[in-house]
Amino acid sequence: MEQLTLMTTALQQAKLAQQLGEVPVGALLVDGSGRLIAKSHNLTIQHCDPTAHAEINVIRQACKKLKTERLEGMTLYVTLEPCSMCATAISFARIKQVYYGAYDPKGGGIDHGPYIYDQETCHHKPTVLGGILEKECSKILADFFKEKRS
Amino acid sequence: MEQLTLMTTALQQAKLAQQLGEVPVGALLVDGSGRLIAKSHNLTIQHCDPTAHAEINVIRQACKKLKTERLEGMTLYVTLEPCSMCATAISFARIKQVYYGAYDPKGGGIDHGPYIYDQETCHHKPTVLGGILEKECSKILADFFKEKRS
Repeated sequence: MEQLTLMTTALQQAKLAQQLGEVPVGALLVDGSGRLIAKSHNLTIQHCDPTAHAEINVIRQACKKLKTERLEGMTLYVTLEPCSMCATAISFARIKQVYYGAYDPKGGGIDHGPYIYDQETCHHKPTVLGGILEKECSKILADFFKEKRS
Repeated sequence: MEQLTLMTTALQQAKLAQQLGEVPVGALLVDGSGRLIAKSHNLTIQHCDPTAHAEINVIRQACKKLKTERLEGMTLYVTLEPCSMCATAISFARIKQVYYGAYDPKGGGIDHGPYIYDQETCHHKPTVLGGILEKECSKILADFFKEKRS
């Protein structure tokens, strides 16, 4: 139940991104006791920053807040399978668990493409579960790109 | 010759990182006419930010300066083979060429590990040349880690 509630919160972040014309992906971080530490969404256009994906934003936000480079014991929720940039950043930040919504065969970096956590060069591998609120997380993206093309 | 001059400038950035106790990696970006657009080095400790690698810093700096998400036609110089986080960010930023110094069998993401630019999920593949001032770029890293262990 907690997973669904937290993914719903991440989806609300995705909706905020959509309203700004950003690719609708949202993310949040909770610590070991379930406390919400950071939430954000894609901001690449607003911030003129191709690295400003939802996951990178919450990592940077949480690290700044807690004055640390390491987010040990934390869980990241994100509405889309992380790309290889974000998957690697998650590993560097020592995040414990990743829960994501929609699978991303075209750009995902965990369960597709480079399979970052299966590489020997990856020195911290979080546990990963995909497919949480998958339909809702996919639909907001499909609707966004459909509208862009029309 | 230009390559050696620019990699020497990147190495000077690595030396600044070393003085701060940061892993000594430096980077810079030049545009199509050879103009220096951004230079930086690792700042993960100073900025409490595990994503603050030299490459990410110059991309963010250049994008902010030029008010764009895309660095088309630009060349990135970096003293160490980019990891998979940075390799992916370089692709997202549409950087044209990557020149790097030391090879990184343990953590590299271009010519080792996930071979990011060989993946079908990678939609922009810069041209890449490694091994420029390799000895000097490796030595500063080897010395840094040797000192850390002693």
